Amino acid sequence: MRFRVDILGIESGGKPIVFLNKHDADEIGVTASGRVRIGLNKKEITAIVNISTTSVNAGIVGVNEEVKKKLILRQNSVVDVDIATFPKSLQFIHHKLMGKRLLYNEILEIVKDVVEGNLNEGEIAAFVTALNMQGLDLDEALSLSSSMVVTGKRLNLRKKIIADKHSIGGVPGDKTTLLVVPIVAAAGVTIPKASSRAITSAAGTADRAEAIMPVNLGIEEMESIVKKCNGCIVWGGSLELAPADDIFVKTEYSLYIDPLLLPSIMSKKKAVGATHLVIDIPTGRGAKMKTINEADLLAKDLIELGRKLGIHTQCVVTHGEMPVGYTLGASLEAREALSVLMNKVNVPDLVDKACHLAGSIFEMVGKDNGYHFAREILRTGKAEKKMREIISLQGGNPRIGLDDFQIGGEVKEVRSKKSGLVLWMDNNLLVEIARAAGSPKDKGAGIVLYKKQDDKVRTGDLLFTVYAEKSRKLSRVEDLLSEVEPIGVGERREMFIHKIKESPVVKRAFVIDR
Amino acid sequence: MRFRVDILGIESGGKPIVFLNKHDADEIGVTASGRVRIGLNKKEITAIVNISTTSVNAGIVGVNEEVKKKLILRQNSVVDVDIATFPKSLQFIHHKLMGKRLLYNEILEIVKDVVEGNLNEGEIAAFVTALNMQGLDLDEALSLSSSMVVTGKRLNLRKKIIADKHSIGGVPGDKTTLLVVPIVAAAGVTIPKASSRAITSAAGTADRAEAIMPVNLGIEEMESIVKKCNGCIVWGGSLELAPADDIFVKTEYSLYIDPLLLPSIMSKKKAVGATHLVIDIPTGRGAKMKTINEADLLAKDLIELGRKLGIHTQCVVTHGEMPVGYTLGASLEAREALSVLMNKVNVPDLVDKACHLAGSIFEMVGKDNGYHFAREILRTGKAEKKMREIISLQGGNPRIGLDDFQIGGEVKEVRSKKSGLVLWMDNNLLVEIARAAGSPKDKGAGIVLYKKQDDKVRTGDLLFTVYAEKSRKLSRVEDLLSEVEPIGVGERREMFIHKIKESPVVKRAFVIDR
Repeated sequence: MRFRVDILGIESGGKPIVFLNKHDADEIGVTASGRVRIGLNKKEITAIVNISTTSVNAGIVGVNEEVKKKLILRQNSVVDVDIATFPKSLQFIHHKLMGKRLLYNEILEIVKDVVEGNLNEGEIAAFVTALNMQGLDLDEALSLSSSMVVTGKRLNLRKKIIADKHSIGGVPGDKTTLLVVPIVAAAGVTIPKASSRAITSAAGTADRAEAIMPVNLGIEEMESIVKKCNGCIVWGGSLELAPADDIFVKTEYSLYIDPLLLPSIMSKKKAVGATHLVIDIPTGRGAKMKTINEADLLAKDLIELGRKLGIHTQCVVTHGEMPVGYTLGASLEAREALSVLMNKVNVPDLVDKACHLAGSIFEMVGKDNGYHFAREILRTGKAEKKMREIISLQGGNPRIGLDDFQIGGEVKEVRSKKSGLVLWMDNNLLVEIARAAGSPKDKGAGIVLYKKQDDKVRTGDLLFTVYAEKSRKLSRVEDLLSEVEPIGVGERREMFIHKIKESPVVKRAFVIDR
Repeated sequence: MRFRVDILGIESGGKPIVFLNKHDADEIGVTASGRVRIGLNKKEITAIVNISTTSVNAGIVGVNEEVKKKLILRQNSVVDVDIATFPKSLQFIHHKLMGKRLLYNEILEIVKDVVEGNLNEGEIAAFVTALNMQGLDLDEALSLSSSMVVTGKRLNLRKKIIADKHSIGGVPGDKTTLLVVPIVAAAGVTIPKASSRAITSAAGTADRAEAIMPVNLGIEEMESIVKKCNGCIVWGGSLELAPADDIFVKTEYSLYIDPLLLPSIMSKKKAVGATHLVIDIPTGRGAKMKTINEADLLAKDLIELGRKLGIHTQCVVTHGEMPVGYTLGASLEAREALSVLMNKVNVPDLVDKACHLAGSIFEMVGKDNGYHFAREILRTGKAEKKMREIISLQGGNPRIGLDDFQIGGEVKEVRSKKSGLVLWMDNNLLVEIARAAGSPKDKGAGIVLYKKQDDKVRTGDLLFTVYAEKSRKLSRVEDLLSEVEPIGVGERREMFIHKIKESPVVKRAFVIDR
C-alpha cells in the first residue's frame, strides 16, 4: 500500500520504527510490534510497527529518524508499506525456546536480524532468556562470538602478536588497565585496548581513561595510534566491534542475567585481532565470581573458547573482596593510576595486580620472569613515558600532572566509631555510595579510602571521604550513610551475619560491565 | 528533576512512555527502556523511557497520550521526573529465569505491573519465555489465573448456575458457539459468552457474531442482556476481563509459544462467574492438539485447574482434521450458522458437535440425555428464536435473513483434476487461502467447501470457491493456489508424504486464538 510520510523527529536508539493508523495496519494485516517492509524506489527496509488509533491519520506513515535516514525520506515522501514475512531468525529463536541447540548459520541469522533491527525488544529478550535458562554450549558460544564479529567492524593491524587484557569485572576501583597497557606497550608488545563504560559500577576503564584523554575514537584512529606506539585505551562503544552485544546487554541488564558473557568478551577480542589474551577474574564476596571454584570453571570455558577462536588465552584469578587501590570514581581513579605510573605513591595491591597481568602477557609471548619484567618497566618510568605517548596520540595533554584532575568540591568525611581492625569492606555498598555521589555521570565524584582490610583503626580515624560535584547528590550520600555501614571495624569477626524474620527482599547487586 | 512537557501525540497501546534527551537521562541516571516516575502535584506514575540524542531538547520531557491522559497534562506543563526504582516484580521474573517456582503474591505483583505498564516489552517476553521453557505447575497456573482475574473487570450476574463454553481452537470454520449459546440459553441456562477475534485463524467467534450483530459491548451492557435472555455472544476484548492476557498474547504470538493457555482460558471464565464449563479440544493433524493423548493430558490440567478455581469443568475431545461445516470466513460462517438455526440446511458435523457440547452442559447442570435435549431445542426452532432475541438485545436486526450477509464479489472456483475420494483436507492451507483472500479483516472474504473428507469426487467437480472483497487479494489467492493443494483427491492413500533434501525450513503453522 502507498503512504505519505510524516517525519516524527523521534529517535529510537538505532531501531527503525514506523507509526500506522489502526485501520491501515488492519488493512496491511500487521499488529503492534509486528514488522513491515517500507521502501521507495526499490530500496526497502524492515521496520517495527507502532499502532495509533488517533494520532496518525489514515494514509500516513509516521517514521522515526532511523527510517528517515536509511531511506533518505522527506516530509510527504511517498512510500510503499507492506507486511513483512516473519524473519527466518524468529523460527530459530523459537527452536531455542523449545530447547534445541542452534547451528552457526541459525545463530548468524539471529545476530544479523538483531543488528539490523528486524527483531523487536520482546523477541530479543526471549532469545537471551532462553540462552540463560538452557545454557549455551561451547559450540553455540563460538557461533555467537563469530556471528558478533562478522556483523561488526574489525581492527586490522597486520601484526603477528597482538596482546589484549580483559577483566570480568565486579571489583570497584579496578584501574589496573591504566597500568597494564603502558607496561605491555613499553616492552614493544602490541596491545590495542578497547574498554567499556560503567553500567552497574562506579566507573569503567573508558570512564577512567577519559579523565586523562579523549577515548571516543573511531576504528581507523585506533589503528593508526596503535601502529605508532603499540598501545591505546579507547572506548569500545564507539568502535562498533560487536554491535549485537550492545543490544543484548540492555536486555540482560534489566533482567539481571548475563548468558552472553563469554561471546561478549571473546567476540571483541577477536575483532581487534588479539592472539594472546589474559583475563582477570576477580573472585570473592562482592565480586562477580563468588567462589574460586566458580572462577576456575569460567576460566576453563574462556580458555577453551579462546582456543576455538585462535586466541591463546590465560586467566588470572584475583582477590575481589575489596576495592583495588584507594579510590573509586573516574577522576580519582585516573589520578591514582597516574601517580603510580609516576612512582609518586605506593599502592601495593594495584601494582601487584597490574604486574601479574602484564607479566602473564609477557610470559605468553615468550619472555621469562614476566612479573619482575613488568615491575622493572614500571619502576624505571618506561611505563609512564609510554602512557604520555598514548595520551598525546589520543589527543590529550601529555604533560598532565596530578593537580590537573577535577575532583568534586562537595565533601563528606566518614570516621570510625570503634577501634580495632578493618574486618570487611562491602564492595556493593561502596559502589552504591559512589553512584549516589554522582558516579559514573559526574567524573569528579567518588570515594577516597584511607583504610583497607586488616588495617588498624582507632576511634575517630578517617575511614573514607566521599566527593560529589553537586550538593544535591552529596545529600543523597548522607541519607544513605545514615542507613548503611560499608566498612566493618571490630576486634574480631562477629558470628552474626543477618536475621531473616520474613520473606526476604533480595537487593539488586548485579554486575554487568563490559 | 523539573521538566517542561511536550505532548507528542503518539499512542502506544496503553503503555505510558516518555522521551528524554540523552543528557537529561544520564543526569537522572536512567537508560533506554528504563523506568522513571513522572508526576505533578503528588499524582505520580511510572513510565518507560525512550532516549533521543537530538529530537528532544534538554529540560523537555516528551510524553505519549497514555501519560498525558493519566496525569492530565498540557503542552508546557511542569512535571518532576526522577529515576524509578526497579519494580519488585522484576526480581520475581529474575527468580523465574533462575528456575524458581513463584508464589501467588509474586505472580500477582508481576501481573499488576504488566497491566499498569511498569514492565517493558523485553521483561514481559522474558517472563513468558521462562514460563514456556520451565513449564508452570498447577499452583502457578492457579496464581496466574487468579491474578489475571483480580487485575481485570468481573461480570456480576448473581446466578447460582452460570454455564460457559470454550474451544482450544485450531480447527477452521468452527462456528459451533453460534449454535451452543442459543441452545443452552433457550433451555433457561445462563451462558454469558465472551469470544475472541482471529489472531492466526480466518475468523474468531467474535468476528463471526459481528457479521450478525454488534459485539463490542461493555461489561454493564453484557450483564443487562444476559439478565434478560440468559445469553449473549460478545467480544471479550472490549470487556477487560483479563487485560494482562491481552498483553501476554502479543508476545506469545510472535514467539509461537503459548505457555499461558490454561490461565488465559480459565481466568476469563472465572471473571464471568462461570460455575459449569465445557471445553472443546479439537484434535488431529492441522489442529492445535495433534494427538488424542496430548488432548487428554490438556483436559486433565483444565479440569484440575477448574476444580481449584471452583469451576466444574468437562472437556470434549473432537475431530479436528478438517473444517467444521462448509464455510470459512466471518460472514460465510455466520450465514451457515444462521441457516442451521433456521433448519434450512443440514450440516451434520456442525450440528453434531454443537449438540454434544450443549448436551454436556445440560448434563452437568442435571438434565438427562443432554445431546438429544439439545437437538430438540434446535429442531423445534427454540434455538433460532433465542438467537433472534440475543441479536435484538445486542443491537442487531432480529429479522436478519440469509440474504442479508455481504459476501465478497471476487470469486475463484477450484475444481478437482482427478476422480476418487477426498483423502485429506489441509486446515493450515485452507486458513492461509482464506487469509490471503482478506480474512479476518474483510468479513465478506472466505471459502465455501463443496466436498469434505471421504466424499466422492469426479474430475471437474467443484471442490471449493474462494470469495474476496478486493481483486488485489483474489490475485494473491490465485498465486497461492498455483503452488499448493489444500484438498487431496485420490483412489487410495498414497504412501509418500514428503522428501527432505536439505535442512528443512519449517513453515509457520501456529494457532493462538483466544
